[in-house]
Order: sequence, then structure tokens, then C-alpha cells
Amino acid sequence: MTTRPAARVGDAVAAVDTPALVIDLDALERNLQKMAAFARKAGVRLRPHAKTHKCPPIALRQIALGAVGVCCQKVSEAEAMAAGGVHDILISNEIVGEVKVARLAALARQAHVTVLADHPDMVAAYGAAARRFGAELAVLVDLHSGGIRAGVEPGPAALDLARRVADEPGLRFAGLQAYQGAAQHIRDFAERRVASERWIAAVAATKALLADNGLACELVTGAGTGTHAFEGTSGVFNEIQPGSYAVMDVGYGLILAEGGHPVTEFENSLFILATVMSRNFPDFAVVDAGTKAGNIDSAMPTVWERPGLTYVSAADEHGAIKVASGGNAPHLGEKLRLVPGHCDPTINLHDWIIGVRHGTVEVVWPVSARGAVL
Amino acid sequence: MTTRPAARVGDAVAAVDTPALVIDLDALERNLQKMAAFARKAGVRLRPHAKTHKCPPIALRQIALGAVGVCCQKVSEAEAMAAGGVHDILISNEIVGEVKVARLAALARQAHVTVLADHPDMVAAYGAAARRFGAELAVLVDLHSGGIRAGVEPGPAALDLARRVADEPGLRFAGLQAYQGAAQHIRDFAERRVASERWIAAVAATKALLADNGLACELVTGAGTGTHAFEGTSGVFNEIQPGSYAVMDVGYGLILAEGGHPVTEFENSLFILATVMSRNFPDFAVVDAGTKAGNIDSAMPTVWERPGLTYVSAADEHGAIKVASGGNAPHLGEKLRLVPGHCDPTINLHDWIIGVRHGTVEVVWPVSARGAVL
Repeated sequence: MTTRPAARVGDAVAAVDTPALVIDLDALERNLQKMAAFARKAGVRLRPHAKTHKCPPIALRQIALGAVGVCCQKVSEAEAMAAGGVHDILISNEIVGEVKVARLAALARQAHVTVLADHPDMVAAYGAAARRFGAELAVLVDLHSGGIRAGVEPGPAALDLARRVADEPGLRFAGLQAYQGAAQHIRDFAERRVASERWIAAVAATKALLADNGLACELVTGAGTGTHAFEGTSGVFNEIQPGSYAVMDVGYGLILAEGGHPVTEFENSLFILATVMSRNFPDFAVVDAGTKAGNIDSAMPTVWERPGLTYVSAADEHGAIKVASGGNAPHLGEKLRLVPGHCDPTINLHDWIIGVRHGTVEVVWPVSARGAVL
Repeated sequence: MTTRPAARVGDAVAAVDTPALVIDLDALERNLQKMAAFARKAGVRLRPHAKTHKCPPIALRQIALGAVGVCCQKVSEAEAMAAGGVHDILISNEIVGEVKVARLAALARQAHVTVLADHPDMVAAYGAAARRFGAELAVLVDLHSGGIRAGVEPGPAALDLARRVADEPGLRFAGLQAYQGAAQHIRDFAERRVASERWIAAVAATKALLADNGLACELVTGAGTGTHAFEGTSGVFNEIQPGSYAVMDVGYGLILAEGGHPVTEFENSLFILATVMSRNFPDFAVVDAGTKAGNIDSAMPTVWERPGLTYVSAADEHGAIKVASGGNAPHLGEKLRLVPGHCDPTINLHDWIIGVRHGTVEVVWPVSARGAVL
């Protein structure tokens, strides 16, 4: 059932079939190096989120550059990463259900596995499964950062749950998961920093409360591409979990750096290569990449380095491109690079990532954890 | 890289791992039978769109009930359908690019293949490939139905292109593709009918123009689940292409029948089975199915037969469910059935469809054309 790749190693980029996910290997490498350098300088552990790329070769490169391991969101995703050679995995999610919890504990015999809890029933289920498989599971208490999200409230509720974890045979209390999802895409720099600092203060207070009660947090982990610099230099967090920085997308391209200019720290390394498949009207073109080739939930794709072309809407298999008058109009059959609206769910649509350098296909990576939702 | 299925044949539905696509086989069968009966009664050919289900066993059942074959949107999707035993395939799309056009012509040696054209360059490329493979390709002229979509304008432009097709060695002019995508989801019945009737008139005029010029349309094909009754009884179309009717979704649940009540002709047979994975607050729950398990582009999923529960937003791996006060609140670990917001791109996220009947898993179907975007 796995689809055929859109190219072979050695093909010219111009010969890649479409729609296809293409990654600029040099830009990817620069992104990976920059975040690794940030974490090194800040003195925090870097644990990139593999839910973005779902691709073990990228994870292994992140680890080679200093990352301690990866985050995953699903047990099946973690299984794919472990099979791909990753030895230290934080499942930054609650795991519920007998089949999945058993697999979680079994995986902890193959790799160092950490997981989240936000309820005593989970603690009991994790403990029973860990004892059954003779595994030790490291467990973080997940802090609720607002909105309709998982987690327990920072403060006494977190302390109660941490005690349960510490008391449960087979489990090891490992600290706090403190990811503030809502802050990542706040556009204005100062607003984003304020949201982050408020959150860091709540996390610091909870960490202190636990310490006062004899529960040391070996790990306080969280942060994404949007806020990594705040948590990473806070002195409260000792691990960061950014994912999107490796490839970037339209959504992260919209957030602003200090001073109000767009964030340019990380580059777009990921593109949806698309072909113009209809070109009968002067003011628009249709490309062969719609919602089955790129996610549009949070932003439309943009057309890379083609001013005058705007991707305005998507059907399942088609993208609608408006052509400005006097613009550099595309011709039928022309291939365009689209910047994905949202990288994570876009990569999850594809079985392969075509890695290119200097105009040539250099690698064809399987997206091994694509569709790993269990 | 194909993921493990969420269940085995014989499992109780309650034991299916989540998130998973579950199909109610009895409801599916009723939907398939109803559309087959409509087409039979109307005297039109039924060619269901396989871009919805991407699953050969469902296509074969549609054919067993009288369908003439299927539609696909992509060459790779058509290849998966042909490999799954479907012998007559209309690729209801323009195919552009050397690799794909070669595969299209090669496939025409294995199955009866029809494809669309909206430009003379395509006609030339199709013809060259057909001659190279010694295949005969049937070609429909695609009519532009408005908006940023493929196709040539109805009328003289269509006649010009039809002549090109008829004159191209290796190709057979087979008629008109006349799908009006924009009309399918018009909510009000009368408005939908008016839009459909206007379109049918334009198609009829083009068909007559071609006939007057010696080009008979063996096939005038189009229509979706929203307008099939109009085109199907028009006397102008002799084939209909609905897809969603087999499984339905929230989007099609919103359109109204004559008299203003919701359309009830077809049932929801497809569900995303999800587990409540966080339940710490009275007014909300978090489920394990987000945008990697269900598409939200056109509508949020709804919670099946659980009044008081509203799926309000989705992150990649999480669905946010509001719980009305006094509602029948779900408990941690409870499994909920979600009606997909949009069926086609939802199915495209999953490798397997779990078919259930009377509470037991009866089939586990591979979604063979999932991810077949080339």
C-alpha cells in the first residue's frame, strides 16, 4: 500500500513527479545546526519533536548534532522512531487504552521511554503495564496550560499526581511536561514573550512546590519553535521540544521577531512541488496539489519566489492560484514550489520526502511514521 | 511503512484501537443500493468516484450492484484501482507531465481508461503516449463550470478542443466531462436545483453544438452526491459520478432536501472512532483524534449520538470536545464515534478501514490508494 516515490536518487529536481514533498538538504542542515547551537549555548537539552517530520533519518541527524532524543505524540510513532534507531523517546502525550499502554510498556524494553500522565487512572495503568513487561517507565506530570487541552492544573493538583507517580511501582517520576501550545503562534513578539513568561512563572512555582515536598524534577520540558528562546533561557526549563524549526511553514513565517520584522532565524527547507495542470484563463492557474498534498487548516500554502502568484484555495486534488495582472504568469506544465501552510500535517500526507541539493535528488527518505496515529 | 491495523477480524468493536476509521457495513450497503437503484430507475450509468474511499473492495461492491466502473483523480489512484480488479476507470482530471502521461497510456493497456483534456498540449501529449504504448485512450473534453477550476468554456472552445481530440491518432473522442463542483454543497434545495439546471442547460447547448458539427458525445458525465438527482434525470447526462454518498460526512449532512429538512437519503456509514484521553475539567474532554485522523477543512467532526458533546477544534493529534452542563459527560477512556467533517480527505489519512457489523469486526480493508497523489 505504500505509494511509489516521486523521484529516484540522481534525478534532476526538474524531473521529480508531482505533487511531492521536496526538502532542501542544505537549508535543513542550517536549521538543525542553528537550533543545536542555541540549545548548547543556553545549556538546555534539545529534544526535537518528531511529530513534525516522522522521518528517522532526520531524527538521527538531529541527535548527531547533539539532541538527546526525540519527542513523539503516539505510541506507534515512537515504535517507528525506535525501529529507525532512536533510543530515547518522550511521548509528549497521555496514552489511554489497554492495547496502547501495553505497547508503550513493551517499547520501554527497547528504548528509554518517557510518557505523560494527567490522571491517577493513567498512573495505575502505566504501572500495571510496566510491571507486566518488567520495564521501567519514566513519567512526567503534564501541566495544563489553558484552553481545551490535556494536563492537570499547575500547583497542588500537579503535586498530588506527582506523588501518585512516585508511589507507583514500575514508574519513575521524572518531572514536568510544560508545553504551552497556545503561545507558539502569537504573532507579536512582546505579546508572545509575555504569554511565555507568565507560563514560565507558573511552571517555576509548581517545580518549587514539588521540591518543597521532596519531589525533585529531573526534567522540566516544553517549548516549541515559537517560544523556545524564552523557555530555553528561563533557568526553569532544562529541555526544549521544538519541531517545526527543521522545515518551517507559512504559519511560523507569520510570527514576528523582536523589532517587528518576520522571524528569519530558520529557513523554509520544505516545499510541495506542484505542476500547473490547467491554464486556460489569464487570471488563474490550477495546480495538482490540493488538501491531499498539503494541509490548509491554519494557513494556505504560498508560492515560493513567485510574486504575483497567490494560492487562494484548495480542493482535494487541486490548488487554485490567482495570477496578478502583469505578473510572471506560469505556463501549463510548469512546476512551482509551494511553502506548506502547516508542516506537520502536510508531511503526514506523504510517504516520501525527496531530499535535494544543487538541483539533484540526493536522498529519498521514507516518512516511516506517516499515518502512525495509534 | 504501512501502519498496523487498529483491529483484527473477529474483534469486538469495543476493542478497536483508536483513532481508527470504522465503517458500518450495513449502512454502507444500504447507501450503495440506494444510489444503484436511483441510477437504474433514471436510466443513467453510475460511475462512483473512488477518490472518496480509495478502497478496491468498496469499488468492486459498487460495480457488483451495477456501476460501470469508477472515477479516479490521479493516475496512481487509477493504478491502485486497476490492481484491485477494476477494469473501467475514468480519470476525471487533467494529467500533465511526462512520467504521469506515460503511466496513463501504459495503464490503458491493462484497463479501459478515459481521461480529461482542457488544452491542445494535453491532447498532443496523450496522443504521443498512446501511440508509444499502442494503447487507445478515450478522452473527454472537460467543461469549465466557473471559479478557479480546470476546463474549457462550454460552447465553441469545447468544440475546438473536441475536434483536436477526434483528429489525434491514438485518442478517441468520448464526450464531455461536466462536473459542477461548486453546486454540490449549496445548502438550500431550490438554489441548488437552479444552479444545477443552469449548468445542465450550458452542457446541453455544448452537446448540441458538437452534434451539429458531427461530433457525437457517447458520454456526458458529471454530478456529485449533492446534485446527482438533477443531472441524473436531465436527459442530457448519461452518467453520474457521486462519491460521498457511500459514507457521507458532516458537510453533506448540512445540505437540505426539498421542503427544507436535512437530506436523509444516505446514512452516515463512516466514523472516526476516538478515545477520551483527558478528562480533568467538567466542561471539556480531549480525544485522541485531531487533524491527522480527520480533515476539518470544510466542517468539524460531530459526535455521533451524543447530544451535549461538541467537537469544537482540532490540533494535530487532539480533538477538543465541549461538554454541555447536564450533558451525558464522557469518561476517561470512553470511545466516541465521530462523524468525519469531510469524508474524502479523512479516508486519505488512514491505511485501513475497519468494517463492522452487529458489534464485531468483519473486514479490515486496506485503503490501497491512500496517498496516491501522483
